[in-house]
Amino acid sequence: MLFRQVYDYIRIRMKRGEWHEHDKLPSVRLLAMELNVNRLTVFKAYQLLKQEGLVYVKEKSGYYVSPEHLNNREAAYQGGALKHASAPDIRNKLSDIHRVEASNQFSKALIDPGLLPNLFLSDYVKRVFDLYPKLMGTYSTAQGDEELRTVLAAYLNQQFYTDCHASELIITTGAQQAIDLITRMWIRPMDAILVERPTYSAALDVFRAQGARLIPVEFAPEGYDMEQVELLMKEHRPRFFYLNPTFHNPTGYTLPADQRKQLLELAEAYQCLLIEDDSFHDIYFDQRPPRPLYAYDTSGWTIYIRSFCKYVAPGLRICAVVGSQDIINSLIKAKSLADNGTPLVTQKIFLHYFQSTRMQQHLEKLRIALQIRKDVMEEELRQSGLPWTWASPNGGLNLWIQLPEGLSAQRLLEEALRQSLTFVPGAICDPLDQIEDHIRLSYSFMNEASIRIGIRVLAQVASDILDREQM
Amino acid sequence: MLFRQVYDYIRIRMKRGEWHEHDKLPSVRLLAMELNVNRLTVFKAYQLLKQEGLVYVKEKSGYYVSPEHLNNREAAYQGGALKHASAPDIRNKLSDIHRVEASNQFSKALIDPGLLPNLFLSDYVKRVFDLYPKLMGTYSTAQGDEELRTVLAAYLNQQFYTDCHASELIITTGAQQAIDLITRMWIRPMDAILVERPTYSAALDVFRAQGARLIPVEFAPEGYDMEQVELLMKEHRPRFFYLNPTFHNPTGYTLPADQRKQLLELAEAYQCLLIEDDSFHDIYFDQRPPRPLYAYDTSGWTIYIRSFCKYVAPGLRICAVVGSQDIINSLIKAKSLADNGTPLVTQKIFLHYFQSTRMQQHLEKLRIALQIRKDVMEEELRQSGLPWTWASPNGGLNLWIQLPEGLSAQRLLEEALRQSLTFVPGAICDPLDQIEDHIRLSYSFMNEASIRIGIRVLAQVASDILDREQM
Repeated sequence: MLFRQVYDYIRIRMKRGEWHEHDKLPSVRLLAMELNVNRLTVFKAYQLLKQEGLVYVKEKSGYYVSPEHLNNREAAYQGGALKHASAPDIRNKLSDIHRVEASNQFSKALIDPGLLPNLFLSDYVKRVFDLYPKLMGTYSTAQGDEELRTVLAAYLNQQFYTDCHASELIITTGAQQAIDLITRMWIRPMDAILVERPTYSAALDVFRAQGARLIPVEFAPEGYDMEQVELLMKEHRPRFFYLNPTFHNPTGYTLPADQRKQLLELAEAYQCLLIEDDSFHDIYFDQRPPRPLYAYDTSGWTIYIRSFCKYVAPGLRICAVVGSQDIINSLIKAKSLADNGTPLVTQKIFLHYFQSTRMQQHLEKLRIALQIRKDVMEEELRQSGLPWTWASPNGGLNLWIQLPEGLSAQRLLEEALRQSLTFVPGAICDPLDQIEDHIRLSYSFMNEASIRIGIRVLAQVASDILDREQM
Repeated sequence: MLFRQVYDYIRIRMKRGEWHEHDKLPSVRLLAMELNVNRLTVFKAYQLLKQEGLVYVKEKSGYYVSPEHLNNREAAYQGGALKHASAPDIRNKLSDIHRVEASNQFSKALIDPGLLPNLFLSDYVKRVFDLYPKLMGTYSTAQGDEELRTVLAAYLNQQFYTDCHASELIITTGAQQAIDLITRMWIRPMDAILVERPTYSAALDVFRAQGARLIPVEFAPEGYDMEQVELLMKEHRPRFFYLNPTFHNPTGYTLPADQRKQLLELAEAYQCLLIEDDSFHDIYFDQRPPRPLYAYDTSGWTIYIRSFCKYVAPGLRICAVVGSQDIINSLIKAKSLADNGTPLVTQKIFLHYFQSTRMQQHLEKLRIALQIRKDVMEEELRQSGLPWTWASPNGGLNLWIQLPEGLSAQRLLEEALRQSLTFVPGAICDPLDQIEDHIRLSYSFMNEASIRIGIRVLAQVASDILDREQM
């Protein structure tokens, strides 16, 4: 439904007050050319706007902005205070769900703070301030602390047999900022980008806010349909493919190594950047996952986003982005405009904790703790007697559950919220906003006992809905 | 030279690959309508593009993209790696200067870390981690820590007799992020905004990257020409006026209280938001400055940016933004997409330090130390025998110096850099890129002895240039 996207594109520009009432809108021909879409697509978008009374037609002249709508600036500022209607229509759907206070939190793909070595961390921080007495008085550069970049580059090189230099790495405030900066630098409205279906919902929010055209690539337990990926690259010439190939959020799936290599060839052939989000790489259960795509990349088509927020220290929000020197130089400029650098305090604390042997011990314990929680959740689901289905992941924080037939995720969520239980409905993770038969359950935030109770509550809610609907 | 801005606007869109070679560009009429400018302005922009061979004309048809230029995507990715030419043309000029290693740093408007109570700060941090043992494992909300917002709202209310609630305040990573988020939410390409002339250069960089049309308002020691401000608001209907009315950067000037009140009336009358950047409010020398504009505001037309980076703890990068609930709600959404929240660690450290009595003592000492440095710099300038002129500021970190006649800032900077001395040339702070006879000297980063040496070096360099040119 490409015309819907063109419709949204025009609506956003109308909302922002680019045209005043009775202003003439761009012709179908011109807009089709500008957006690189078929004229029929633009025509259909205008027809819908006309139906809704947002635009009107003057014979032999074209489309005009209706007076009763969007009297832009004046309307936007009505009542004295600025209405945010005048701002672009953006939101972060996931954080809306997280704002719900619930006793059974299956929506948060976060590590239970109880699993982090908090006392040790605090002790460590004290030592960091002894090491750098002027730390609080010093700004970081926009690129990030050089000592930290050097350590992280060496760590990645050692882990993945790569040859990345500290200058080819930038520190951001979490993966969210990395995704946002990359999107701002390389995407303009109506640019096509490939995204996995399903995918990380807060990334979708960023892409939509920038006006990108989202082309979905289905992610199955065995990977992508590579022929389809090639067709999509050929047809849409996407600016980039945003992907999370290792213990993927929300599914937990991992892209096999051979598909990783193929993808790099396609990226080069179709000049499509690969934005590899790799936040869960170290959270594997039985064996290490394949190396990230960027480790196979020899020609500079990947941007590697490696967040350490999830398990090292969420309160610090440290993320590394690796790419070719040109790419990193662009991102340094974007970062310097966006916030002029991540606070030095958090970088130095992270650096010294990350290098400690205690950190490695913590990580090993964490893997075991998470695997146990996953096993408990799976066991409870199986014992519930309901036909939930899922592919058991080898790492990460989530189960991607197909619901029993006849049960809709939205309906289940409404009832679950009444029982103080939250999860992420599939549609939020869907670039097409359609997935109704899947939900994401995170096993990382609650302990085993709470997981058992929560899944029983969930199963009861699901049974009740199914019973009622069969009556 | 509005046509230059239209020219830049078209160039940026060409660079980003919106049009392919031999694509038809929008007509003069349409573009004039879209950008809300005169057709002649667009015509002149196209003429310049034609002269430069970037576009060509087909008789009776219009303007087309020349083939040799901007073969967009393909050209941008030439050589295998992405060239950032494909990204929008953005930079942060000030940070370019700061990257120069120099022994006489008059370019940095930062507090000398030696003036901050570092040992005390470090001790304090240790206590914070004892108070919140799980601090490192916890995410902040996008809006920022509620405890911190409550304390800052109470602080501002007490200081300015206002009535702001914690919900009407958002925490950002420095003023830079606040300016960036506000600009992203409310500015689209070619929107007019008012800016002081001169002004903070990194804000200009953000506005330019977003494609804003900059309308300058001259800032003199006695304030603005209010009649001119009204005319500009009437004529250009700016989205907002970005201003730094208290110990202004780079001039050190302060807008008188009566002009503050007038400005609020104009803002309401012409529905122009006032973006008040107030980073230097507490750095006064003899007497407190007038209350900020937002304290006089009764109808929601100000967004108040209050950074504490400059003097509380630069390494923490804590800034508060205050505005009507609608405005703050919009900014929370933007912040959640941009980085999902400032790290909790820095917020909690800041909170507890900010509330300490030690912090108030530090601030009083800091004011005295800075005033002494300012006096030393002014004394050395007077004793140099050269006709520098400036209005002595009552607070802030900078002197805005008019150069001796015949001396250009650019020339002086080139020679000064050879003597390992940096300062900020006026043009960087100028929305029109023209100021050639002023420079900004910061007295905050170097101690008294270094200031004396540095100013002597600067005076010598200036004399040499003037001597050579008179020969």
